[in-house]
Amino acid sequence: MFGAIEAGGTKFVCGVGTGPQDLVTTQIPTTTPDATVAAAVDWIRQQSAGRLTAVGIGSFGPVDLNTGYITSTPKAAWRNYDLAGRVEKGLGVPVGFDTDVNAAILGEARWGAARGVSNCLYLTIGTGIGGGAIVGGQVVHGLAHPEMGHIRIPHDAAEDPYAGICPFHGDCLEGLASGPAIEGRWGARAWDLPPDHAAWVLETRYLALGIANFVCTLSPERILIGGGVMRQSQLYQTVTGEVGRILAGYVSKRPEIGPPQLGELAGVIGALALAGRMHESG
Amino acid sequence: MFGAIEAGGTKFVCGVGTGPQDLVTTQIPTTTPDATVAAAVDWIRQQSAGRLTAVGIGSFGPVDLNTGYITSTPKAAWRNYDLAGRVEKGLGVPVGFDTDVNAAILGEARWGAARGVSNCLYLTIGTGIGGGAIVGGQVVHGLAHPEMGHIRIPHDAAEDPYAGICPFHGDCLEGLASGPAIEGRWGARAWDLPPDHAAWVLETRYLALGIANFVCTLSPERILIGGGVMRQSQLYQTVTGEVGRILAGYVSKRPEIGPPQLGELAGVIGALALAGRMHESG
Repeated sequence: MFGAIEAGGTKFVCGVGTGPQDLVTTQIPTTTPDATVAAAVDWIRQQSAGRLTAVGIGSFGPVDLNTGYITSTPKAAWRNYDLAGRVEKGLGVPVGFDTDVNAAILGEARWGAARGVSNCLYLTIGTGIGGGAIVGGQVVHGLAHPEMGHIRIPHDAAEDPYAGICPFHGDCLEGLASGPAIEGRWGARAWDLPPDHAAWVLETRYLALGIANFVCTLSPERILIGGGVMRQSQLYQTVTGEVGRILAGYVSKRPEIGPPQLGELAGVIGALALAGRMHESG
Repeated sequence: MFGAIEAGGTKFVCGVGTGPQDLVTTQIPTTTPDATVAAAVDWIRQQSAGRLTAVGIGSFGPVDLNTGYITSTPKAAWRNYDLAGRVEKGLGVPVGFDTDVNAAILGEARWGAARGVSNCLYLTIGTGIGGGAIVGGQVVHGLAHPEMGHIRIPHDAAEDPYAGICPFHGDCLEGLASGPAIEGRWGARAWDLPPDHAAWVLETRYLALGIANFVCTLSPERILIGGGVMRQSQLYQTVTGEVGRILAGYVSKRPEIGPPQLGELAGVIGALALAGRMHESG
């Protein structure tokens, strides 16, 4: 039996089970680090009743994958916090640790919309923009973890004078196309704007420019896009069309683009997959 | 003993050996497909004197990695040409086939400047711009092969009114920063422009924007940049600095950026590495 934690900035989603079919979950509000981890550990310990073999954590970031620490987050109390270490001490089992988006693509690859595909990409378009990729069956890590939301794309300031909301880069992909960027530009939340609002022409363009760059770099077979902004589900079709126009026939095979299948539970199910990998690797 | 072919648009570099230490090479001008392949096959057969176990080909593209064909190249005679199949028939040994840039990163990882690194990127800045990546020790393939030169980057038309030279995308990275783009914009070849020419401020900016996007997507530990434009070797330092400015402290660990080590022979040595992999995998 495995434990799973999707560690988010506003809530921790915790789970215990062997797969999506028997997964039991709960939500814990994110408060101070020690109190939040203690609550998560207590719940997992009770639910698993001594039968726990490993825990997986998919965490908000940035994180240091070597040490299991959350690093330079704007949430001051969580900065340089030993999340993986605290959970490991609390539960006494090995911990598999990765970013929330890497956990999500791992879960989708094992149990969701990316089954049977060795090269795939998960993007979340919400409070921020993040991406996790699998290449040749392996989650992409490197010097650190990818920060796909922070790529630079063309931004025509005459067409869209909004300067972008990223505190580091201004008009990177996240700065132009995240939920807060939409709200900052139009003065309304993404889900309150009607589907025929001009916001979605611009959003389609920016998301498609980002995705075209990921296609040219990673050549994924399938791309799953989740996150709050994608509740505007017309975007799946408009973005798919625009990616085709941007690639302009140069890349002859284009990946399928669609929603993830595990929905709200993608993160915690991905953390469960991390726990499973941890267990298998000894 | 392995055979190796770096198949380029102007020349085929052929080699026979077991590694860089005993590699013997020759160059064959690229003419018609059948004549060029026949000359390459004859030379490799003679040099190897019956001791050949596998051949590797790093090819100009785009290619279809499943079939071994060159596909939609502007060189009409080579379009939809069964390069891997013709070489396999000619030499009677298994053929490892990949793009020229994927072969180059494989060669650099085995014998050159990317030894000891599991996540690395090779870029060539010349007639075109191409990239090959290794992630977790594996060359990145997917639905097709990456086309890194064709990512879109910010292009300020007020600062640089040049529209870009890519016939598919206009001002993609290759359209703005390849050798022909430099020549098109400034009316002089890259190697004829002095190191303090304004061309290099713009070139630094574009290359760094592209590299920052690759860093955010792949998180490589090391980036090697080759190709004719990089004979302007001041670019290594200026691009490294500009990548740091663009990432703006968000990505705390930055990859090393430098030249490849195998120089002019990177392609054919990479093809030798492909032959070795083909042999090992049976």
